Amino acid sequence: MEHDTVDLGEFEFESGETLELEVAYETYGEYDGDNAVLVCHALTGSAHVAGREHDRGTSGQAAAWWDDIVGPGKAVDTTEYYVVCANVPGSCYGTTGPASENPETGEPYGPDFPPVTVSDWTRSQRRLLEILGVDKLHAVIGGSVGGMNVVEWAKLYPDYVERLVPIAAAARLDPQCLALDAVARRAILSDPNWNGGRYYDDEHDAPKDGLALARQIGHIMYLSKDSMEDKFGRRAARREPSDDATVTDDPTADFFPYRDVESYLDYQADKFVDRFDANSYLYLLRAMDSYDLSSRYESDADALAAYDGEALVISFTGDWHFTVEQSESLARAFEEAGADVRHHVVESDYGHDAFIVEPENIGPPLRSFLDDDV
Amino acid sequence: MEHDTVDLGEFEFESGETLELEVAYETYGEYDGDNAVLVCHALTGSAHVAGREHDRGTSGQAAAWWDDIVGPGKAVDTTEYYVVCANVPGSCYGTTGPASENPETGEPYGPDFPPVTVSDWTRSQRRLLEILGVDKLHAVIGGSVGGMNVVEWAKLYPDYVERLVPIAAAARLDPQCLALDAVARRAILSDPNWNGGRYYDDEHDAPKDGLALARQIGHIMYLSKDSMEDKFGRRAARREPSDDATVTDDPTADFFPYRDVESYLDYQADKFVDRFDANSYLYLLRAMDSYDLSSRYESDADALAAYDGEALVISFTGDWHFTVEQSESLARAFEEAGADVRHHVVESDYGHDAFIVEPENIGPPLRSFLDDDV
Repeated sequence: MEHDTVDLGEFEFESGETLELEVAYETYGEYDGDNAVLVCHALTGSAHVAGREHDRGTSGQAAAWWDDIVGPGKAVDTTEYYVVCANVPGSCYGTTGPASENPETGEPYGPDFPPVTVSDWTRSQRRLLEILGVDKLHAVIGGSVGGMNVVEWAKLYPDYVERLVPIAAAARLDPQCLALDAVARRAILSDPNWNGGRYYDDEHDAPKDGLALARQIGHIMYLSKDSMEDKFGRRAARREPSDDATVTDDPTADFFPYRDVESYLDYQADKFVDRFDANSYLYLLRAMDSYDLSSRYESDADALAAYDGEALVISFTGDWHFTVEQSESLARAFEEAGADVRHHVVESDYGHDAFIVEPENIGPPLRSFLDDDV
Repeated sequence: MEHDTVDLGEFEFESGETLELEVAYETYGEYDGDNAVLVCHALTGSAHVAGREHDRGTSGQAAAWWDDIVGPGKAVDTTEYYVVCANVPGSCYGTTGPASENPETGEPYGPDFPPVTVSDWTRSQRRLLEILGVDKLHAVIGGSVGGMNVVEWAKLYPDYVERLVPIAAAARLDPQCLALDAVARRAILSDPNWNGGRYYDDEHDAPKDGLALARQIGHIMYLSKDSMEDKFGRRAARREPSDDATVTDDPTADFFPYRDVESYLDYQADKFVDRFDANSYLYLLRAMDSYDLSSRYESDADALAAYDGEALVISFTGDWHFTVEQSESLARAFEEAGADVRHHVVESDYGHDAFIVEPENIGPPLRSFLDDDV
């Protein structure tokens, strides 16, 4: 595993704004001219896709988030493939984002960072691969908004990639998810510490309460009714809320139980606000919400028309964030566009998180697809 | 229509705390000793169930919220039935709640108001009916948490009521809804104006941002993916966000569209925070979340064992807040308990709100059931 940061020079965002962009990335395995696989991370992921032994105390998707899938002898076998994963522009794991220093002011960009889009992510990845000397991709793989990133490759660089694997993804979010994401952003913007996105200096606190709420909404979207029933039910938690949990300020908290599901959400949010930047969360949610495969085209199929490679679409029956129906629609668009496509539906109660937590369900079809072993 | 407030005297809450409780209620039609129908309102409803001509500029469920169902010649025909609807303890529409003056201090109760439960609501309704001279109920009808209130009648006063109609209800919420409600409460508690629930005097502002977020989460729960697709899609809004909308503080707001679905949520929340009290919202959410028909019993059927009347359970296929499966489970519990029960499933894409916005689907079965015209 190699971890590095590369300066892409002046990068023009879809918004028209430009800045000096650094990209943090990792590579695994050896490039043989024919075996490059790009992995695209999800909303709060990092370039550190695998290699748990290098986690150094990080957690969540800052830690090796797909170590069950990527590695020597695993579904994406790093003894066979040269795997590249890059942190996306706007994030906070090494690639330039709102928390990075603006060289013109010596202060963090904050709200002066340009809006980012999935297209920006894709173009930054292409520039990185050029620098790495990769002139074609055996495959691009990614889950969730990382799956949107995968699909964008077919649209922007159809001749550069031979195989696409969008997992638990869609051509666009539905309005229910847009609505929940909009509330999540409002939670950040309503935090008294938001301060217009300028909260990085010592005189300010970060808007952690708002970011916690936003993340809790996200976590609920990643689970399903069934998985929540199995995992938590209506049980009371076995631990008390932490002293600084907002729930302790609830006048009715003494009479009603602190439930396991609340405890889970509080615990996850507590960890998250220490590892992620509120501006980044706001920017990346916007990128996901605004993604629409068909934009500037007449249809999804039209957007994919130039792509002649193969595609494996994977979806999960319990996922209501990115539904099986949306994956089926995406697969049909590939088909209409003339691509060789399969849609693999995994029976799972788990919800959207299944693409991370049920590697045994996606490993085998993914391996077969990459190895042309159909 | 009569609108009045009655003093129930000292009322003991399930928590063991007592206070002087006033209840706001409305009645429609004439009592003939045999024709009383109690209607239970939903989370943010009021006693003003019908009589749109008396709305006086109110909105939402402060306005005549079931005027399509209750009235002369309507499904619940007020020329035939004596209809009673009372605002629940803890609410803010005339019945004593956190915003009411505590006679001991001359200040609003705020967080000193006791926790409230669906059982408290039911017992307050029973006391009110005694005062009105109603010694048995032809029927109790209600939707959403009002349907939990209906079911609680069978548990607490099985001999007092002959017909029950829980609509879009359940014996208990599932953990997904508990989680969303928990985040909604945290939004209120995180508001810088929360001030421990003491925000009623002139020196404080109410925690409107937090209440707005909480309500937006609620609104999303009341709709379905299908209804949101039909109503909003991914369209941009035709109006700009209002100047004080939190979204205007989003550094990326100029680049991305303000969507119709956001505009709807912002507009609804704006109206809501002017009509509803944040403490009440917190208290009533807790009552709904904590409701469990089987509590202090071995099962739901056991809790209903003493009830010998009839029940009509109505549910909506597009409702994910209170699902068809939950209604079916409730109907089975009535059946096991020996009650005469029917479960009427309405095919609807609309979501939970269908019980309010699709009166044409529930009017006919409701009328037949009340009139014993099966």
